[in-house]
Amino acid sequence: MSRSPGRKQENHKISRELFVLTYGALVAQLCKEYEKDEDVNACLDRMGYSIGTRLIDDFLARSAVRKCRSYSETADLIARVAFKMYLGVTPSVSCSSATGNKFSLILDKNPLVDFVEELPAERASLCYCNLLCGVIRGALEMVHLAAEVTFLQDRLKGDAVTEIGITFLRKPEDRKHRR
Amino acid sequence: MSRSPGRKQENHKISRELFVLTYGALVAQLCKEYEKDEDVNACLDRMGYSIGTRLIDDFLARSAVRKCRSYSETADLIARVAFKMYLGVTPSVSCSSATGNKFSLILDKNPLVDFVEELPAERASLCYCNLLCGVIRGALEMVHLAAEVTFLQDRLKGDAVTEIGITFLRKPEDRKHRR
Repeated sequence: MSRSPGRKQENHKISRELFVLTYGALVAQLCKEYEKDEDVNACLDRMGYSIGTRLIDDFLARSAVRKCRSYSETADLIARVAFKMYLGVTPSVSCSSATGNKFSLILDKNPLVDFVEELPAERASLCYCNLLCGVIRGALEMVHLAAEVTFLQDRLKGDAVTEIGITFLRKPEDRKHRR
Repeated sequence: MSRSPGRKQENHKISRELFVLTYGALVAQLCKEYEKDEDVNACLDRMGYSIGTRLIDDFLARSAVRKCRSYSETADLIARVAFKMYLGVTPSVSCSSATGNKFSLILDKNPLVDFVEELPAERASLCYCNLLCGVIRGALEMVHLAAEVTFLQDRLKGDAVTEIGITFLRKPEDRKHRR
């Protein structure tokens, strides 16, 4: 994606409130359409995936990052650069497996739920922000990294923090060369 | 809506690209659900209205604007302050009626359609950005201003510019006092 050099950074920014409310309208619409939370979650994930596959070009063009050499570096980049760039927040990252392919992004504050107090009782299994998981998964796939991305904790469900789990799926050739 | 004084302006900003793609997913979802463009347009307008009624508090708190004394001042405020704050663009404003209650907001560039090239042939009557009309209508209603808000021109439909028309609906008491 080419950009004219004169284009100001500011032009890329819009108000978070408008986004948060529009996202809320999207989730509400899906809840009207699908009775089961699982179906809403799957739909949000699919939408996010499609967004991620398109957003990656924008990310690579604007961030000018170099190729990551490890899963750890990739997870760190998602948190420090991508989250900061797109949502204005920086989650903390922790590696949660001895095999070095599972990471957690931990958000003290989730910018997408500003206007949401709690999930309605009948929507207890809703992963309200599941779009984000899809976005991460879609973007990673475009740089040839297969991953499972899911919410592990969610403040909307009473957890202390919001935690997104990323499990990089090793390719067969990775396994072959693993010591 | 109270905000802590230390909260940085930057925290209110997110990437426009993510918003634009999420909005696109919302419109695509409604197009799946409703066969007729008119129904999609009406649904976007309703969603926007609901967003506008909630966004107005945020706008009043952050903009610290004073009460407008004329429709002209209100239209100007929507363009210069609200559009700038929420979408990062400033449409030009023109008054399009001798009675002083019809205004046009003209956007050379519509930030919501960055990733949209043109409407599909079977969606020729879709007002892709109709959410915006609803937002303006909803926000105005919360400050006791009834208005009709519609797209008059749309670059997505081949027009030279995108033009949003706002018609303030005079209240009976306004008419009574009009000279």
